[in-house]
Amino acid sequence: MALIVQKYGGSSVANPERIKNIAKKIIARKKAGNDIVVIVSAMGETTDKLIRLARQIHPAPPSQEMDLLLSTGEIVSVALLAIAIESCGHQAVGLPGFLAGITTDTSHTKARIRHINPNRILEELKNGRIVIIAGFQGISFENAITTLGRGGSDLTAIAIAGALKADACEIYTDVEGVFTTDPRLIPEAKIIPIISHEELLEMASAGAKVMQSRAVEFAQKYKIPFVVKSSFTNKGGTMVRDVELKEGAVVSSVILDENQAKITFFHVPDRPGIAAQIFGALGGENINVDMIVQNVSKKDYTDLSFTLNRADLEKGLKISKEVARKIGCREVSADDDVAKITIIGIGMMNHPGVAARMFGTLAAGKINIEMISTSEIRIACVVRKRDGKKALALVHKEFIG
Amino acid sequence: MALIVQKYGGSSVANPERIKNIAKKIIARKKAGNDIVVIVSAMGETTDKLIRLARQIHPAPPSQEMDLLLSTGEIVSVALLAIAIESCGHQAVGLPGFLAGITTDTSHTKARIRHINPNRILEELKNGRIVIIAGFQGISFENAITTLGRGGSDLTAIAIAGALKADACEIYTDVEGVFTTDPRLIPEAKIIPIISHEELLEMASAGAKVMQSRAVEFAQKYKIPFVVKSSFTNKGGTMVRDVELKEGAVVSSVILDENQAKITFFHVPDRPGIAAQIFGALGGENINVDMIVQNVSKKDYTDLSFTLNRADLEKGLKISKEVARKIGCREVSADDDVAKITIIGIGMMNHPGVAARMFGTLAAGKINIEMISTSEIRIACVVRKRDGKKALALVHKEFIG
Repeated sequence: MALIVQKYGGSSVANPERIKNIAKKIIARKKAGNDIVVIVSAMGETTDKLIRLARQIHPAPPSQEMDLLLSTGEIVSVALLAIAIESCGHQAVGLPGFLAGITTDTSHTKARIRHINPNRILEELKNGRIVIIAGFQGISFENAITTLGRGGSDLTAIAIAGALKADACEIYTDVEGVFTTDPRLIPEAKIIPIISHEELLEMASAGAKVMQSRAVEFAQKYKIPFVVKSSFTNKGGTMVRDVELKEGAVVSSVILDENQAKITFFHVPDRPGIAAQIFGALGGENINVDMIVQNVSKKDYTDLSFTLNRADLEKGLKISKEVARKIGCREVSADDDVAKITIIGIGMMNHPGVAARMFGTLAAGKINIEMISTSEIRIACVVRKRDGKKALALVHKEFIG
Repeated sequence: MALIVQKYGGSSVANPERIKNIAKKIIARKKAGNDIVVIVSAMGETTDKLIRLARQIHPAPPSQEMDLLLSTGEIVSVALLAIAIESCGHQAVGLPGFLAGITTDTSHTKARIRHINPNRILEELKNGRIVIIAGFQGISFENAITTLGRGGSDLTAIAIAGALKADACEIYTDVEGVFTTDPRLIPEAKIIPIISHEELLEMASAGAKVMQSRAVEFAQKYKIPFVVKSSFTNKGGTMVRDVELKEGAVVSSVILDENQAKITFFHVPDRPGIAAQIFGALGGENINVDMIVQNVSKKDYTDLSFTLNRADLEKGLKISKEVARKIGCREVSADDDVAKITIIGIGMMNHPGVAARMFGTLAAGKINIEMISTSEIRIACVVRKRDGKKALALVHKEFIG
């Protein structure tokens, strides 16, 4: 008898028909002799509707009350799914986050799970019930309802799976798994059968819309394996777990991010503390800087470029110009006509020459590389925006096929 | 400094505009130096929408999951009202029933409040916050969310007022108070300024749609006074409290109930145990019998009539016919062409002759009385349905004006 934790996203429970379908799938797994714990998100557009409602009252509603408001969306899904399961003659119990023993800190709208007391869940399982838990929510040490941030139901599922030492954790979504690249851009994109937590995290930070990063970080930290698969098909999905180097593909995924911009400081005095001044000022305004490249110094002066989210460009440029004046830099330029192409793969670690192969592929396509940044399992290049999709296709073909 | 408990019904919080209006009223009372606790219902049609959603999954959804589902409606109102108050620069805190310390029994969908722990509410008040509480809900001894039945927010407000020993309990609704009769039928209907709990209970059982009976019973039991008034106007409303006999009008209200039916047993053997057999069988099927009249016995036989809700007529008649066969009664007839007119007034207790005055009024209108039933503070007459509205007008004019 296995203990299985499943998570169904908003599109899987978007209407009564889909909820009934999910119920059937859950019951089939129960009948096969498993103990089942299910985490659900709010139905379809519910969360967005509630946010719109709150904003009609206040453009920036207070976070504690927003959490109380948004937590209702998942509870509705929980109740309806429990009703669907019971209407098929199986016993179920629906639990809001606080009744499932999920305690968080007090960072409303992006709370962190601090503790899970699994006693209630275990007791309900012992009584033969299918346990349905509201994702995305908990209760703080100060006895206020909290939420875990967008995509927080993934985190709930992974944390519950960890606390219960579940035999399997299955994240059901509206895609068939984690793809080697966005299949809307590259029809040849394939599902990655096995991937490490690290690679999935790199994918998210490279701009791929996969899972909530905090959920993956949590899974990585506590070594919790899980599967990402579609609730609409029966395909295998993607297993996320510790990967032995020899198992992993050299390059597991290729990500194109067209929402980047570049700021360049020209002719910066090359003395200690300048970079700290620039990036300290940006960080102080919550602007996330991604790649940083500094040229070799010429006559005590250098050029310095970095990339940031295009949405932050205006604010970032304003701050940069202020810093430039202070440090005696002549010119700052902004460029949002760029794209970033990233390859990720745990196999790179023992395959030298991957970077050279990537640069060669882009060169063969006559695509100029403007910036390069590498880590143990990632290589990212900034190119002209018009070259982005072509670069993606060439690099995906070279490494994945 | 007074402690005021207010309750706002679904129409008072039906949309963001109305919620903002309510927030302003609450803040005005707070600024006047009061501590404020507010109980809210679900927005407008929310509860009905959730019920429809559940019924798309199962025609008779299990009650524990229905409670979990419906409890979300009030929580949404709580969060939005707290947001509205905070957006005006005042501190508020929203509490679902379980965080407000409301413990109930396990009778899902119609749970009874067993205990209120007011500590959290008192602590929030001490910190200067306006406390907003979800009506209609609590948590059971078995740690499941429960609801208190339709109109249960009234009960929440009255129970909280009692637990806090509040200086005032104000029930805001979409009518201006309790009327002497339905103003849609009698334009001369007046608001009753002061009424006793007992009279209000009699009004509900006579067919008037006022407040949830259980809320009034609770208020009566614990001697909790409250005011019923409109959230849309500033009129005085109706004060419900212990009434001295000399204060009360002789007749405080006149109620017409057109949803009644009558069943008559003709020629029933007049021996002990017959009535018990008839009403035992009906009660066993949850059919509520209202008035019972038995004629004077002739030659060891008698006729026996009773009234019941018209919705129960078919089922009641079937049961009656079965019993009639067993007890050797020749004939049972049903009649749904009746109406019941009731006068209620605590002042009747020391005003003899009220009944005679009512009968005389009906007689002067050439309205035949078919059944009569009286209690200490109530006189009810069954008449032909076509005479109902005329009877109401005549009796209301006679006693109230």
